Amino acid sequence: MQEIVVDAAKLHDFAQSLCEKAGLSSEHAEQMAKLQVQTDLRGVHSHGTRALPGYLNQVLDGNLNPEPNLRIVSEGPSFAVIDGDNGMGHLASTLAMETAIAKAKVTGVAAAGVHNAGHFGAAACYSIMAVENRMIGFSTTNTGRPSIVAPGGAEAVVGNSALSYALPTGDGHPIVLDMACGVSSWGKIGTLRMYDKPIPEGWLLDDSGQPSSDPNQRGLMAPAAGPRGYGLALIMGILAGPLTGGMMPCNKTGTSSEHFFIAINIESFTDYDAYISDVVQGINKIHGAKTAEGFTQVYLPGEIEWNNYDKWIESGIPIHVDHLRSLANIAEKLDINIFWEW
Amino acid sequence: MQEIVVDAAKLHDFAQSLCEKAGLSSEHAEQMAKLQVQTDLRGVHSHGTRALPGYLNQVLDGNLNPEPNLRIVSEGPSFAVIDGDNGMGHLASTLAMETAIAKAKVTGVAAAGVHNAGHFGAAACYSIMAVENRMIGFSTTNTGRPSIVAPGGAEAVVGNSALSYALPTGDGHPIVLDMACGVSSWGKIGTLRMYDKPIPEGWLLDDSGQPSSDPNQRGLMAPAAGPRGYGLALIMGILAGPLTGGMMPCNKTGTSSEHFFIAINIESFTDYDAYISDVVQGINKIHGAKTAEGFTQVYLPGEIEWNNYDKWIESGIPIHVDHLRSLANIAEKLDINIFWEW
Repeated sequence: MQEIVVDAAKLHDFAQSLCEKAGLSSEHAEQMAKLQVQTDLRGVHSHGTRALPGYLNQVLDGNLNPEPNLRIVSEGPSFAVIDGDNGMGHLASTLAMETAIAKAKVTGVAAAGVHNAGHFGAAACYSIMAVENRMIGFSTTNTGRPSIVAPGGAEAVVGNSALSYALPTGDGHPIVLDMACGVSSWGKIGTLRMYDKPIPEGWLLDDSGQPSSDPNQRGLMAPAAGPRGYGLALIMGILAGPLTGGMMPCNKTGTSSEHFFIAINIESFTDYDAYISDVVQGINKIHGAKTAEGFTQVYLPGEIEWNNYDKWIESGIPIHVDHLRSLANIAEKLDINIFWEW
Repeated sequence: MQEIVVDAAKLHDFAQSLCEKAGLSSEHAEQMAKLQVQTDLRGVHSHGTRALPGYLNQVLDGNLNPEPNLRIVSEGPSFAVIDGDNGMGHLASTLAMETAIAKAKVTGVAAAGVHNAGHFGAAACYSIMAVENRMIGFSTTNTGRPSIVAPGGAEAVVGNSALSYALPTGDGHPIVLDMACGVSSWGKIGTLRMYDKPIPEGWLLDDSGQPSSDPNQRGLMAPAAGPRGYGLALIMGILAGPLTGGMMPCNKTGTSSEHFFIAINIESFTDYDAYISDVVQGINKIHGAKTAEGFTQVYLPGEIEWNNYDKWIESGIPIHVDHLRSLANIAEKLDINIFWEW
């Protein structure tokens, strides 16, 4: 048996306890638990609680600050830059998106950047925050080091940046695109390895830039759709990079990350109900679209993840035993009891 | 001989004369000529003067307004919505990006949308305007009708929206990504047909959603990188669509387009020179990167196009005779002399 089904609320309390025990304030620990369990519920395990032991070990090793003093270091009517004080990226990113949303309510559109912070988890966590405020959200992130080649290249020059858009659809779940600019996320490759599944041909490259099917090949990945994924990765690494007071991945020596967020207030541009009405009409057409042989339905971006969410919030989240073992190890280190039965 | 080399300045004057004769004001005709010749110089013929006869025929047929009264219909500190008055999309889009830039100078970030306008040509024309103001520019556009399937679909549900980012690099040409969300732009497919080149396997789909290599297959294209290109196309069609007072491509019955622009003022977020310094350092690393067998260099997004520009601004632009024949036809209709020798 590879998976155990765990209750989402219990997983939340467990994750919060781990964070508190590692030195985070209750408020910050609750934020971390909420975002990570939301990500697990959407089936994006690579960016949910599976990442938590890594973050907490960074805290325990003194490489990540458990009690960051988050500061807005510069701001104006439609922008803000936040210093993450070497804390978990989720915390500074939540403040950044909250700040962008508050400013966009007044001005129509606003952006906020974060520097000097850790990994922020799933990009969708922050774009979705805008939707709860009847806005369109955008989020992107830099990475610690480059891992994607340019077309024709044999050396990593850009990071595998993620970018996410979330858009309100009225009563339904938002449209959520959360994509890596590489042909895959590294987290997904880790998941394939964990489930002993093969890594698709052409995703990874060897040191000479040729496609490799060696599952242990680690450093080099192809961009999604060639020049497009490469171009987007390069640009995301500048928005969440030198624009926010940090560096492009290829210039980095340290491990801190930058993040960048935009909030677009729909009501500034148009009548909100007219926007929703057109989007709902479009969604109905997409859901009714003719399918190719072997397919019974086409999905909206993020819809498969929301289907997981709706199911697993009731029935529990199936989690791989290796993922749970890793959580159990950090729990033991922090003297916290696990809540599931092996 | 398939191509004739024409002088860029003469092509500009010729294009301007055509636009004026069709009823555009001198100022608008000059704007059209400038953007279209700039696009030809970058080698993106599909979106430069090759598109001009189509636009002018729409004017002559009474389907496009040669003298639009461009109006800002709503605005605030960081947003504006412009009614293009059924004129050429380039004109309303130029005003929209100018407006976004002016607002971003004050607030840090601003966006502007256009509705009720024609096709806007190359998306890069507008993102580049931001760079001239030491800003990062973003532009996107809707299309007249859907032409891209969702993964697993056999019916077009999203438009082949273009999106472009342009970013300052100091003294050099800007980094410019200008990409379709489909596996290709339709203009590029037209170019391949014009040069009798094969259309790559898997780009077009037949009516049952299966890959087609029939060059005459017209209506259905695959998205770039599957769910990513599909997701981006869907989202671009909402930003440049219901957000700006228009419709998603799958909801459209008419032909008018929407466009959407963002300007990000670098100096609001960080020291401009520090930004440039990091970007130049990154560019040098990318240019020095190891290449795969068969490649001598990797390029920045837009760099190959700027190389065309630098060469052709001096030596003239090689243009396909079919493209020139189409310009000659509209010139004859408008009683304007052509300037090249057959």
